[in-house]
Amino acid sequence: MAAVANFIYRNAGDITEADQHTDEEEGMFFQRVEFRLDDFRLSRQQIPAALAEMADPFGMRWSVRYSDEQRRVAVLASRQPHCLVDLLGRWHAGELPGRLVLVASNHPDHAELVGRFGVPYHHRPVTPATRATQEGGLLDLLAEAGVELVILARYMQVLSEGFIDRYPSAIINIHHSFLPAFSGGQPYLKAHARGVKLIGATAHYATAELDQGPIIEQDTARVSHRDGVTDLARIGRDLETVVLARAVRLHLSDRVLVYGHKTIVFA
Amino acid sequence: MAAVANFIYRNAGDITEADQHTDEEEGMFFQRVEFRLDDFRLSRQQIPAALAEMADPFGMRWSVRYSDEQRRVAVLASRQPHCLVDLLGRWHAGELPGRLVLVASNHPDHAELVGRFGVPYHHRPVTPATRATQEGGLLDLLAEAGVELVILARYMQVLSEGFIDRYPSAIINIHHSFLPAFSGGQPYLKAHARGVKLIGATAHYATAELDQGPIIEQDTARVSHRDGVTDLARIGRDLETVVLARAVRLHLSDRVLVYGHKTIVFA
Amino acid sequence: MAAVANFIYRNAGDITEADQHTDEEEGMFFQRVEFRLDDFRLSRQQIPAALAEMADPFGMRWSVRYSDEQRRVAVLASRQPHCLVDLLGRWHAGELPGRLVLVASNHPDHAELVGRFGVPYHHRPVTPATRATQEGGLLDLLAEAGVELVILARYMQVLSEGFIDRYPSAIINIHHSFLPAFSGGQPYLKAHARGVKLIGATAHYATAELDQGPIIEQDTARVSHRDGVTDLARIGRDLETVVLARAVRLHLSDRVLVYGHKTIVFA
Amino acid sequence: MAAVANFIYRNAGDITEADQHTDEEEGMFFQRVEFRLDDFRLSRQQIPAALAEMADPFGMRWSVRYSDEQRRVAVLASRQPHCLVDLLGRWHAGELPGRLVLVASNHPDHAELVGRFGVPYHHRPVTPATRATQEGGLLDLLAEAGVELVILARYMQVLSEGFIDRYPSAIINIHHSFLPAFSGGQPYLKAHARGVKLIGATAHYATAELDQGPIIEQDTARVSHRDGVTDLARIGRDLETVVLARAVRLHLSDRVLVYGHKTIVFA
Repeated sequence: MAAVANFIYRNAGDITEADQHTDEEEGMFFQRVEFRLDDFRLSRQQIPAALAEMADPFGMRWSVRYSDEQRRVAVLASRQPHCLVDLLGRWHAGELPGRLVLVASNHPDHAELVGRFGVPYHHRPVTPATRATQEGGLLDLLAEAGVELVILARYMQVLSEGFIDRYPSAIINIHHSFLPAFSGGQPYLKAHARGVKLIGATAHYATAELDQGPIIEQDTARVSHRDGVTDLARIGRDLETVVLARAVRLHLSDRVLVYGHKTIVFA
Repeated sequence: MAAVANFIYRNAGDITEADQHTDEEEGMFFQRVEFRLDDFRLSRQQIPAALAEMADPFGMRWSVRYSDEQRRVAVLASRQPHCLVDLLGRWHAGELPGRLVLVASNHPDHAELVGRFGVPYHHRPVTPATRATQEGGLLDLLAEAGVELVILARYMQVLSEGFIDRYPSAIINIHHSFLPAFSGGQPYLKAHARGVKLIGATAHYATAELDQGPIIEQDTARVSHRDGVTDLARIGRDLETVVLARAVRLHLSDRVLVYGHKTIVFA
Repeated sequence: MAAVANFIYRNAGDITEADQHTDEEEGMFFQRVEFRLDDFRLSRQQIPAALAEMADPFGMRWSVRYSDEQRRVAVLASRQPHCLVDLLGRWHAGELPGRLVLVASNHPDHAELVGRFGVPYHHRPVTPATRATQEGGLLDLLAEAGVELVILARYMQVLSEGFIDRYPSAIINIHHSFLPAFSGGQPYLKAHARGVKLIGATAHYATAELDQGPIIEQDTARVSHRDGVTDLARIGRDLETVVLARAVRLHLSDRVLVYGHKTIVFA
Repeated sequence: MAAVANFIYRNAGDITEADQHTDEEEGMFFQRVEFRLDDFRLSRQQIPAALAEMADPFGMRWSVRYSDEQRRVAVLASRQPHCLVDLLGRWHAGELPGRLVLVASNHPDHAELVGRFGVPYHHRPVTPATRATQEGGLLDLLAEAGVELVILARYMQVLSEGFIDRYPSAIINIHHSFLPAFSGGQPYLKAHARGVKLIGATAHYATAELDQGPIIEQDTARVSHRDGVTDLARIGRDLETVVLARAVRLHLSDRVLVYGHKTIVFA
């Protein structure tokens, strides 16, 4: 902590935010420091080498990112529109960092809507038989567009391990339950059958194991015996959109560190 | 609904609260009606027969209870005091209906504290070898005291099926997780390992299947990567006491109907 | 309660939901009953007279509404898009009852977006000098379109008493604070100055007294010393959209009864 | 930040927690650093001078506290027991840092209960005529017991400015509303009259201006038209106890910085 603070101070940087976390069990120290470069003595070209020189003696792992370099984002959706529409609205309103460069879906339904927001829409249908080909096509699409973050906005297709491995800690999924409760399909049906008094939503990074990835954000809402499965789904939609949007914002503000199968969120 | 309302109206009862619920899948109608007896034309002796006469043609199942007849309650606890102390405090402050007639524990720790509140304390130690005998002793104790509700205030012993069958829908347990997530032992350890962003507590009726009984009340609280297992336990204690107290109050106000493995809570 | 239940039962209606509330201080009884007309013995033409005959002896005030008769809705907005976009998305996704027939605004900003959703957009600029004329124009617009509910989706113009009187309990406003805290202008600035640890949003019916109308729905979200005024506004936007949408849904499902300057919400 | 981190590093301290906050409007930087002294090169006697030498060139204001030096705490209560009982239970369970050295009240009601917990109870009745004398007596009592934190656990007497000035940022009050809504007396009555859908509780430092002190912690709970004033009070009691306990814990863990009329809470 001293070394990093000294490095910034010595080079006339201006720290605007700093967060630390010590994992005592693992003996690991985590830090996120945000600083202004207005009078910084090093150019962006010089920073990596200078950082490495400071960091290496301590065995630090580090990365640096500039807040004016917007990341390129893709959204994958299926039939349900609520998370997709919500994200479109937020980018339209200037609420989210990053730049939405494409939407892809296995359904044609949202072509017109997405087009209205001036974002390219790619309809990529899929059947069990064509899954590998469709995924290959999606990967090409994402690669050509230089996508750095993939958002699964209620995309109902299971992605292969090969797909997921191409975007480590860079695919955010929204699951419509309070994980680990009701993982897998039809969580609202399961929640109704169990008679829970709260439902939840969980935004997490996609990993090869379904619904097991590092959790970024969760929230719950109160329900009662009066709420049937469709009521749970309706109440849940508001949770899903808000939880997903918060997770996307945290990721694109570089506030999420993935560590093992957990996250550190410097909110 | 019409028949019940007519019955009360005809006999000069005064409805103060009424709640209905229709389970359309099962084709079942549920109702809770609270009414004043000030000018009621029937005596308490006459009410059951008159109710049966009204209800039988519709195939209704019914029960009636008088709010001035306090139920007798026992609390079972282990080493952790927070739920027990909270319940003692609430009865002391007159916040809970019912009458606490005894506390039993497999540990001697709370004898003095419970004694200070003027409630009998029964220390009933248990080992794997003596479990059946200890349970038998507890059942005798509860029977002698005429107990109608048993509260497991973080009682850490698994009760046998035989014990539970003696108090159907009349044993309330508090589980320190948002069930069905983290059922079984050490939920805070599991929650920490999974990296959840919320922890929960669940009050439910005990049934033969551990942590599977009908849920009465649940709540969650926000946690972060900064919170170790002991922090989760500390934050969770406030959830546990409040969720358990709410469930006890709902039960003792006859606001909980058990139906299958779920509850209808007319809060 | 008996009289209404009998009336429906006698005419072969099928009650699907019923809620009652007794205000003991005022000696008033409130009831909302939802029932199916599948085999109902009375036609829609006959229902009002039959209801009146049943209700008059008790001095009941009543109204009846058919769930297949969609109400006509207008949204007024100013520069901020979030509530407007959210409502457009919900109607697009089929989540809200009623029919959005027009959007009007004192700014031209949203013309394109609203047009994309196929909804007429009326730009009605206003200055202090032209306020009366602009309001007159708006009233004509609403009258011509047969509007029955007006939603103020962060419409930043104060409406005159004359305007509000034309839509009693039919103008829903979203205020960006937990009323009665921070009524009037710039609530986030005031909340930041006071150092609150939660911010809120309040949906209420507009009345002649600013921010004093009957509250339909409220919610709060946690903030901290780290959140500047713009952070509060960002966190608050999610509250505003969700709270407003819930209130609109409750109103359009006829679940809100206005009584004095308060509401009864049969959720 | 660099200077402090260097100071600790140079002296072989081990930072376990660090939090920073920059108030950009005021141009102020705040920091809380927690570190272990196991191998620290300076004794407790040497630390203040060494800290001053490091801090003075930067114009820092600082204080240092040792987590093994428990602070002495007094609780003032009136007739309502819930916050008092809750705090007694928490200290009994070892949940709160600090040491409860006395309870004082203008009512005799809690003498027996507090005595059971082994804490001295001082009954100090008060009338409008005797207020100054009673306060003087209380101040003597607190001074003799070396009290460093005074908790107003629903103490319903307004304290004079002179009293409050003796304990700057060291008197914590719990107000039974979401301040600044419903400041002053009878907040539940006012909340009921206004028809709010949430009630709240606020823990704040007492200052000469009633209910205007820096807010430490707040929370809200959902209510409905069904809840009369006594229901609001009942629901509110759980909020009050939990919010007050959280604030006390934050204060006694030195996580609250008072700055102007606001707080920075390094939770």
